[in-house]
Amino acid sequence: MAEPAAYRELEARFARLHALGGASAVLDWDSQTMMPPGGAGARAEQRAALALACHEILTDPRLGELLDRAEAETGELDRWQAANLAEMRRGWVHANAVEARLVEALTKATSRCEMRWRRARPDNDFAAFAPALSEVVALVRETAAAKAAALGTSPYDALLDEYEPDARSAEIDAVFADIESFLPDFLAAVLEHQARKPKPLPLAGPFPVEAQRALGVKMMAIVGFDFDHGRLDVSAHPFCGGTPDDVRITTRYDEADFTQGLMAVLHETGHAMYERGLPPAWRLQPVGRAASAGLHEGQSLLIEMQACRGREFIAFAAPLLRAAFGRDGPAWQADNIHRLYTRVEPGLIRVDADEVTYPAHVLLRYRLEKAMIAGELAVGDLPGAWREGMGELLGLVPPDDRTGCLQDIHWAEGAFGYFPTYTLGAMIAAQLFDAAQAADPDIRPGLGRGDFAPLLGWLRANVHELGSSLGTAELVERATGRPLDAAVFKAHLEARYLA
Amino acid sequence: MAEPAAYRELEARFARLHALGGASAVLDWDSQTMMPPGGAGARAEQRAALALACHEILTDPRLGELLDRAEAETGELDRWQAANLAEMRRGWVHANAVEARLVEALTKATSRCEMRWRRARPDNDFAAFAPALSEVVALVRETAAAKAAALGTSPYDALLDEYEPDARSAEIDAVFADIESFLPDFLAAVLEHQARKPKPLPLAGPFPVEAQRALGVKMMAIVGFDFDHGRLDVSAHPFCGGTPDDVRITTRYDEADFTQGLMAVLHETGHAMYERGLPPAWRLQPVGRAASAGLHEGQSLLIEMQACRGREFIAFAAPLLRAAFGRDGPAWQADNIHRLYTRVEPGLIRVDADEVTYPAHVLLRYRLEKAMIAGELAVGDLPGAWREGMGELLGLVPPDDRTGCLQDIHWAEGAFGYFPTYTLGAMIAAQLFDAAQAADPDIRPGLGRGDFAPLLGWLRANVHELGSSLGTAELVERATGRPLDAAVFKAHLEARYLA
Repeated sequence: MAEPAAYRELEARFARLHALGGASAVLDWDSQTMMPPGGAGARAEQRAALALACHEILTDPRLGELLDRAEAETGELDRWQAANLAEMRRGWVHANAVEARLVEALTKATSRCEMRWRRARPDNDFAAFAPALSEVVALVRETAAAKAAALGTSPYDALLDEYEPDARSAEIDAVFADIESFLPDFLAAVLEHQARKPKPLPLAGPFPVEAQRALGVKMMAIVGFDFDHGRLDVSAHPFCGGTPDDVRITTRYDEADFTQGLMAVLHETGHAMYERGLPPAWRLQPVGRAASAGLHEGQSLLIEMQACRGREFIAFAAPLLRAAFGRDGPAWQADNIHRLYTRVEPGLIRVDADEVTYPAHVLLRYRLEKAMIAGELAVGDLPGAWREGMGELLGLVPPDDRTGCLQDIHWAEGAFGYFPTYTLGAMIAAQLFDAAQAADPDIRPGLGRGDFAPLLGWLRANVHELGSSLGTAELVERATGRPLDAAVFKAHLEARYLA
Repeated sequence: MAEPAAYRELEARFARLHALGGASAVLDWDSQTMMPPGGAGARAEQRAALALACHEILTDPRLGELLDRAEAETGELDRWQAANLAEMRRGWVHANAVEARLVEALTKATSRCEMRWRRARPDNDFAAFAPALSEVVALVRETAAAKAAALGTSPYDALLDEYEPDARSAEIDAVFADIESFLPDFLAAVLEHQARKPKPLPLAGPFPVEAQRALGVKMMAIVGFDFDHGRLDVSAHPFCGGTPDDVRITTRYDEADFTQGLMAVLHETGHAMYERGLPPAWRLQPVGRAASAGLHEGQSLLIEMQACRGREFIAFAAPLLRAAFGRDGPAWQADNIHRLYTRVEPGLIRVDADEVTYPAHVLLRYRLEKAMIAGELAVGDLPGAWREGMGELLGLVPPDDRTGCLQDIHWAEGAFGYFPTYTLGAMIAAQLFDAAQAADPDIRPGLGRGDFAPLLGWLRANVHELGSSLGTAELVERATGRPLDAAVFKAHLEARYLA
């Protein structure tokens, strides 16, 4: 295929943008894992300087001209190049829709708001947090309006588009409505079913951090994590960062309970396998990136929820757990561990929620953030709306804002449009895992012998290696033979929790 | 003081440059401490993109215009602003003297040469290394010629100016000649003196890494290192990196011998104290940086060689060493530890050299690199010239190139003009420590009780807080009452090694 000059020049510019983005990602990892507290100010300056350098590349008038010229020459581009060009344009639209003044104001406001949040949450002081959040919401709404005009979408959809390209809230509303109508009766049935079975026996600690870490490393290797291209470290909140060539995942250790930290390792390993599996030939280009936040979460939930909380894998893992901590007895048998790892218990805190009740937490946030962006919910009314929503969705009313609307950092960071991707991810994970099993009957037995190769082979071919060459909706439909909806997710929940 | 617009704009641009430089410094630290091997390619791209962003800031034609305008308005600048403007111009001259083509060619050549060196050294294969080094030398000579024209210096002095601003080899030749004529007889006298005394008793290992690390951290805190603004980690070669707000030092641990790793910690802590002590008000400006590589090495050698290998500190430290490793007996008494830490033994390897023979290693490299830059020594003749020089300076002839001219990475990295700063640092350390003691008689007793506050107080006021507001020569003369020469260094060696 010929490569026209304008397109070639765009690739060079985006490679540079991508390298600066990689630098910023490593610095972000460092901030959360290694940086001493006194380094925060200098780090903020470093990341702001990097963000400005990236912004300048994307807003250089010459870049817009190059895009126009390349788009006039698409006949000479192959499928991947054309998809790459479309992703370049998407990045350009997002960056150029918003004035530099607004970008800077929002950066500063979210910085202040995050700091305020870090004190307000432990202090349970919503009043101290509200003015900073109001400022953020006002600036996010302004951003949303500007991007909506450029993208031809609603303001909320313009925000959503940053995380979930081409997704629209009208479609999400429909699948979320399906889950919302399913959940109350299903949850009641699960709790009743669970009550009839013996309570899981607790795994008694302590579990030394070093043993937990060694077990985590072993599990990562079993899934297929390549330690020549990545690390495992500790942070307050587990995450997957770095770059595809150097994937940095984290977890946290609780000496009294290893189960959460271990599942976090497996969750983040799912993210990491996606990053590592992205097409190497396109590693510095927009089309070489993950297709969406929902698809990314789909990869982590597929490994964690679908594969590693399943009976096959837990049967394989139970002896490793016993060996890791030198324990034995009834609590350490696969059956009991499986009961622990699939225990359902409605609670107030999203990050502690089980697979069944998690969507309720997301539905609430999705509902509230849409209302805030639409100007239908004032920040001051958030605590009340939260309590009301939690009562309706899970039958629980938080006694305070610390366990209510102050629990998450996302809105303080200006991340509106991100929450729905958690539940989109859960549905994607269920639908992909189902299709993978149908395509390769050895996938489930493989998990039972700690062999992830069949599963990963299918994921590589049908998801990872496609990068952003397909949109998430098209990718899921091609991989699974049907558009994304809640049906397979619901069937999965029924099979696992009512069996 | 008024701040003219051009100068203010320059400060904004250099703050951005400095923040990008800080980002690059943290990434460099990460490469040497945390990065998995497979991350090297992506990291090289990240650092190249950062270097390009910095280069663009420095070569933007508008920056040259701003410098011209600001220099026409210096009457309105205070002393620090004027010094800052001069440092800005120095950075501009270095960056703009060399064409982008040459910068890029040199970056690629040094990259290749470093990789070649990493194999050639263990393989003892100079022939495999020589073509890559020849290429580097040719490009460095081209760079030197271009900078010499811009700076009005000799080519070698133009390279030296990057590390040791305003230093000239004619002056260094004079002080190094003094050391060169002093060294042979002095070394013979030291070895004779040492032979008459009992041999130091060895400290028997093993010394667990965790105990070594805990001891290092304790020693850093004693010197005054602030762990809210820095870390201690492990790397193949100890270094001090990061930024003044987040100083990252490293060491390496040998379970059979803790003494080298511990002294490396103290050496790097000396560098770190300088970085942390730089003037906070100027932290993002050129004038807020360390004045020179020699002055930086002076800080590390002052802490390591002058303070921590002295009798007072070792008397204080000996009980801590015994407690750290749970040992006791004659080998663990202060006298014996002091004998170990001041043992002189001519050897082939620079990084293992003691305080007395170290300058001989530097004199050789300085002589050879000047000859290479002047075109008087071909790369092919380097092994022979090295053997000859070592024979002459230390009476030792390396049996192979691995322990000869292949031992250092500096030339492969394109760092010509750096080696002399090691011995300039040793002289600066001696001269500053001598002046500090004269100014505050409590400094030496302070070290004996593990109290570095008197020493650091003097260093802060006379060195650290000055940043680059004075040149190294002027700073040393003001702090010590005399120009830098070898006299105090020689007197220090005589007092320590012939007493």
